[in-house]
Amino acid sequence: MKFNRRNVYISPKAMLGRNVRIGDNSSIYDNVEIGENTIVCNDTVIGEPMGGYYSDPGYENPHCVIGPDSMIRSNSIIYAGCTIGRAFSTGHRVTIREKSVIGEHCSIGTLTDIEGDVKIGNYCRLHSNVHISQTSAMGDFVWMYPYSVMTNDPYPPSYDIKGSYIGSYTQVCVHAVILPGVQVGENCLIGANSVVNKRLKDFSLATGNPLKVLDIRKYAVIGKGKLYPWMYRFDRGMPWQGIGFDAWARQQESPK
Amino acid sequence: MKFNRRNVYISPKAMLGRNVRIGDNSSIYDNVEIGENTIVCNDTVIGEPMGGYYSDPGYENPHCVIGPDSMIRSNSIIYAGCTIGRAFSTGHRVTIREKSVIGEHCSIGTLTDIEGDVKIGNYCRLHSNVHISQTSAMGDFVWMYPYSVMTNDPYPPSYDIKGSYIGSYTQVCVHAVILPGVQVGENCLIGANSVVNKRLKDFSLATGNPLKVLDIRKYAVIGKGKLYPWMYRFDRGMPWQGIGFDAWARQQESPK
Amino acid sequence: MKFNRRNVYISPKAMLGRNVRIGDNSSIYDNVEIGENTIVCNDTVIGEPMGGYYSDPGYENPHCVIGPDSMIRSNSIIYAGCTIGRAFSTGHRVTIREKSVIGEHCSIGTLTDIEGDVKIGNYCRLHSNVHISQTSAMGDFVWMYPYSVMTNDPYPPSYDIKGSYIGSYTQVCVHAVILPGVQVGENCLIGANSVVNKRLKDFSLATGNPLKVLDIRKYAVIGKGKLYPWMYRFDRGMPWQGIGFDAWARQQESPK
Repeated sequence: MKFNRRNVYISPKAMLGRNVRIGDNSSIYDNVEIGENTIVCNDTVIGEPMGGYYSDPGYENPHCVIGPDSMIRSNSIIYAGCTIGRAFSTGHRVTIREKSVIGEHCSIGTLTDIEGDVKIGNYCRLHSNVHISQTSAMGDFVWMYPYSVMTNDPYPPSYDIKGSYIGSYTQVCVHAVILPGVQVGENCLIGANSVVNKRLKDFSLATGNPLKVLDIRKYAVIGKGKLYPWMYRFDRGMPWQGIGFDAWARQQESPK
Repeated sequence: MKFNRRNVYISPKAMLGRNVRIGDNSSIYDNVEIGENTIVCNDTVIGEPMGGYYSDPGYENPHCVIGPDSMIRSNSIIYAGCTIGRAFSTGHRVTIREKSVIGEHCSIGTLTDIEGDVKIGNYCRLHSNVHISQTSAMGDFVWMYPYSVMTNDPYPPSYDIKGSYIGSYTQVCVHAVILPGVQVGENCLIGANSVVNKRLKDFSLATGNPLKVLDIRKYAVIGKGKLYPWMYRFDRGMPWQGIGFDAWARQQESPK
Repeated sequence: MKFNRRNVYISPKAMLGRNVRIGDNSSIYDNVEIGENTIVCNDTVIGEPMGGYYSDPGYENPHCVIGPDSMIRSNSIIYAGCTIGRAFSTGHRVTIREKSVIGEHCSIGTLTDIEGDVKIGNYCRLHSNVHISQTSAMGDFVWMYPYSVMTNDPYPPSYDIKGSYIGSYTQVCVHAVILPGVQVGENCLIGANSVVNKRLKDFSLATGNPLKVLDIRKYAVIGKGKLYPWMYRFDRGMPWQGIGFDAWARQQESPK
């Protein structure tokens, strides 16, 4: 029903791998490269051109790579100049601006808006309606929840744009804000509606506005015990599934 | 202008009632049933298929019902498996995931994102950009305002997903968050940017983060008097319009 | 690639200026007037009809004006009855409801939702995902950041809708909420996640919930000095670019 080649535009300069499917009403622009088995659903744009397209007769669309085994859901817009790794998936109406680099096995939820020049590691999960401002970056296995924001302008409006950074394994709950230039450590938990206005060490539990910071490793729930780091109790879709986090981590460290 | 049958897909397995209108560029998938006089505007998808559609050759789209006298505005996506009552209306770009059940006379605003397995009663009004996570539920006459959120994961990420619940007549103001598994009573008012981290009794006025809770029945404004419960001073579009809330409530209680 | 007249609808009652370009899959409804050199990208609707269109056989679409030299990015919806000045630009999926009036040189970011009957001055910049409720208004050079909100209902739900107002040059940071009917002065800075529940004088620095208010003119950063008013250190795209704010301001005051 979705793949009837109805109202589809595919540039002759796009390169589609084996078994790539392009949904109805979608457009694939110049210099897009899509890896094999990837599904691009209906009403989606891959390789959205940058500003020069509208005014410069010599405009050449920057290269845009979507990895294999990915699923781009409908109405998403991914700009030219992005590089996205394998097994990527999106919800609906996602926007990813130019020159963003996203690792492997990432998932970006419905309505999430990634502004450009952003770096996202592997296995990150941005839920619905997350906003990532330009020049922000994060490590691997970072999860962000709805309406959480990474900001970049310390005295708006200014020329001193300075993205923030979120370390690996950190969880950022709904409506939390990371202020410009702030470095958040690994394995932190940022509470709902909190405003992170200072550097956070690894294993911080940071909540509220003004921000209160505790050590997440001391956080336990009756009948459940210690809950963080979370990698010892959650493995669905994670590369340590079945073998345990420590065994997987040792594999990562050993020479190949 | 909107109803020219331009670039429309309607499955032969869809059932459209009398006077149903389908806008240009819209798709109605298998096993969708739309009640009479309903308008589906342009660029809209009803019965969006679930994941199995892309991989399972024997995939059958679950039944999706949209009640009569409804208005689905443009660019909305309603998944297969949803059941929605009569006189439903949406803004633009609404997303409703699979297996959600929505009662009669509900209205869902522009960009609102309902994640799936959600239960919404009758006469609920979700304004623009509300986010409802999976397994959340609410009673009747609940109003939620922009960027308010119902969450479901108590220690993210976890396997212990537990939607929250909002009782009938409760109002949830902008940017308020209901934490996972929390039960909010009837006739509450949740203030802007507050974080509801505990069970709230009926008639709670809950504001801030950390949360402060008062009795809403004591809240009065000079020149206006007591304002809550709101059903005694507001009836536009409500079933007690013209007869008053008490008279209507008595009708509900009496045997038919 | 975007301008192939593929699946485009342009009403014979629309007036398009010289060099106007309309992207594929876009619709321009009755009584829309678009100024010269404006680009309307793909999948965009200008002059979206109001409710009467669906039921009233004599419905006439209200006049909608988009100024010259504008750029409307894809998937935006601008309702009939809006008047928007020259050099306007939008991100993707912007919604602007009926009867809103927007000045010159304004920019509205991706997913921003303007509800109708809103007044926006000149050179305002609303970033991604801002929500402006009905009857809200702002002066000139106002910047609003993601998930900031102007609200309008003091005791929801009520009939006493009362938009708030933001004075010229004021900056409203992420997730900030202006409560209904509140007047914010000129040259203020509203901090992230704050709730503005009272009138703010010019030059207020307002942060938090509950709100704390200081004088922004006393705010200085080591090595940078005083940062506000910001017009003395930032001029990109502003009319005082190259000549300085004071010189420009004097020009505005002098008789022409």
